[in-house]
Parts: sequence; structure tokens; C-alpha cells
Amino acid sequence: MRRRPGGRSAAVRRSVLDAVIQAVADDGPDALTIAGIAAAAGVHETTVYRRWGSAEQLLLDAMLDYSEDRIEAADLGSLREDLVDFALAIAGFLSSATGRALARAMIGTGAEAPVPAGRAEFWQRRFAVTEVIFRRAAERGEWPEDADAADVLETIVARTHFRLLLLGRPVGRDEAQRSVDDALAAVV
Amino acid sequence: MRRRPGGRSAAVRRSVLDAVIQAVADDGPDALTIAGIAAAAGVHETTVYRRWGSAEQLLLDAMLDYSEDRIEAADLGSLREDLVDFALAIAGFLSSATGRALARAMIGTGAEAPVPAGRAEFWQRRFAVTEVIFRRAAERGEWPEDADAADVLETIVARTHFRLLLLGRPVGRDEAQRSVDDALAAVV
Repeated sequence: MRRRPGGRSAAVRRSVLDAVIQAVADDGPDALTIAGIAAAAGVHETTVYRRWGSAEQLLLDAMLDYSEDRIEAADLGSLREDLVDFALAIAGFLSSATGRALARAMIGTGAEAPVPAGRAEFWQRRFAVTEVIFRRAAERGEWPEDADAADVLETIVARTHFRLLLLGRPVGRDEAQRSVDDALAAVV
Repeated sequence: MRRRPGGRSAAVRRSVLDAVIQAVADDGPDALTIAGIAAAAGVHETTVYRRWGSAEQLLLDAMLDYSEDRIEAADLGSLREDLVDFALAIAGFLSSATGRALARAMIGTGAEAPVPAGRAEFWQRRFAVTEVIFRRAAERGEWPEDADAADVLETIVARTHFRLLLLGRPVGRDEAQRSVDDALAAVV
């Protein structure tokens, strides 16, 4: 058997999380079950239960893992540029078939969807990625040390989602810059 | 037969649009078909085809009709108060089971959903309702005559949707005021 970084446990985690993303992209979140994921990933159902406990927890973990590589904090030398980059990363994520399917999964499509509980945590952790952006901006004197970044992030993320998911319109650099400038105008 | 205001044509329209809202609330937009709606409304399929042409057009018309009574432009004496009222009306709409089902329908839940084409038109027409708010604000000197209200509305509507649908958190007066103040800070 081939050795993988992190060993067998990490390999199981990888297979399971990949299977979750694939299942949500193919069939939506309503169809997600631990038994189905275990079968797709080729691992024992009890392994998945022991590690994740519920389909909801499994979905949250898979979404955090999937989005982690795709939405990162840039360091481009200015708060505005870093935030525009963040908005464009979210737009890129939502423009992919998988990203769009995951966003729909977050909203939930029916009473049975194993979704909502993890949503706030998902965004809390996505927003935490940007903390470093605001810390660096404060060091450069671009951002008040004691200001709350939450409203700024909420405006940027909300507008990007609204345009792509509700208006069905693309978000390019112009739209990203407008969201960022409007969001920053409220604070700086 | 009982006479109704608007006559038979208006009565048919009412039955059909009510049937669409009910069907989307019950089963989501994917299941929407002209044949199914005609049967539910008790009218001939050809009548529905002739009048609406497609399931997509039917859904757009039903959503505009449904939201028209629920999201109106208030006249409370200040731009801020009128916009807070607008944000709270949207929040109320999205907090109802039917409103939430309709918002999900707008996003589309699968490749087969008869949705997207009408989305931009829906929002264009919802935003048009607020034109009077900005016109009155300009007369009071609260709003620059030549400013574009679109970004302000987009921030307010996007943040209300984001909180309720993606974070799963309520939007009360405090949150509505924060969205409005942040949105207005970019312009006035």
C-alpha cells in the first residue's frame, strides 16, 4: 500500500470529504447520508459516524475544507486591493459548478436538508481568514485599530452572493471594487 | 356565477398565480410545469400556455404579483426610515415559509429549475418600487438628485438576504438600520 502524507487517517478524511463535495454537487444536500458517503468513499459507515457524528457536521467540514484552498487572504499592499481580491475569490468560487452547488446547500433546499446549524460557523471561519488583512491595514494606518470588520465583510460577501446567485449576473473587477469601496466608505 | 372584479380573465389569472405560489412553496421550483399548474388551478392547459408561454414566465409573474403587496414603498418622512422599512419588509418576506421558498426558487436548486432568466427583471421591478423614496428624499435635500440608488439598494437587499438565507440569523430593526447606514455612507 502506498504511503500518504498524514497516513491512513488523513487518507480516509480526504476520501470522505471529496465524496461529500461530489455528492452535494451531483445531487444536492438533501440526498446526503452518512451511509451513502461511506459507500462512495469506500470506508466503513461506523468510521464516518465516529468521526463526524452527523451528516450536518460532515457537510460543514467538507465545505470548510473545500473553500479553504480557494478563498485565501492575499497580501497586495493595500486594504482595498486585498479586499477586492477576496471578493473576486468568492466570485470565482460561486461561479464554479461545485461552488454554486455548495452555496445552494448552505441555503438549504427543503425541510429535510441537513444544513443550517453549521452555516454561521462556516462564515465565522471564512471571515477569520481575513483577520490578517485588517491587521496589516491597521499597521499601515489604513484601518482604525478598534473598528469592526464584520460589517465590511458582510457587505462584500453579501453583494457578491446577491449578484451571482440572485441576479444571475457576473462579478468582475469593476463590481468587486464597487462593493469594496461602498463597504469601506461606511468605516474609513 | 358570481361576478368578480376584473371578470373571468382576472379570476383565471388569480387562480393560476395562487397555484404557482402554492406549488413552489410545497415542492420547489423544479417540479413546476404548466400542465401541473393548469390542473391545480382548474383551468385549461392551453389557456395557461397562451397567456404565459413558459413555466419560467409563469414563475416570474407569480413572484412579482406575490411580492408586490408585501414589499411597498413607505413614506415615513426620512430616507433612512423609508429604507429601514424597506429592509424590514424584505426581511419579513424572507422569514415567511412562502417567501423563503420563493427566494430559493430564484436561486434555482438544480439544472432543471425553470428559473434564472426572470431574476434580473424581478429585482429591476422590485427596485423600481423604491424610486419614489429617493425622489422624495431628493426634494427634501437628503439625496443628491443625480446619484445612483442601485448600489444603495443592492447593499441593503443583499445583506438582508445574506443574513437570513446564508447565516440563518434574524434581521430586526438594529440589523436593518446598520445595513441602511452602511449603504448610505457610500453616497451621502
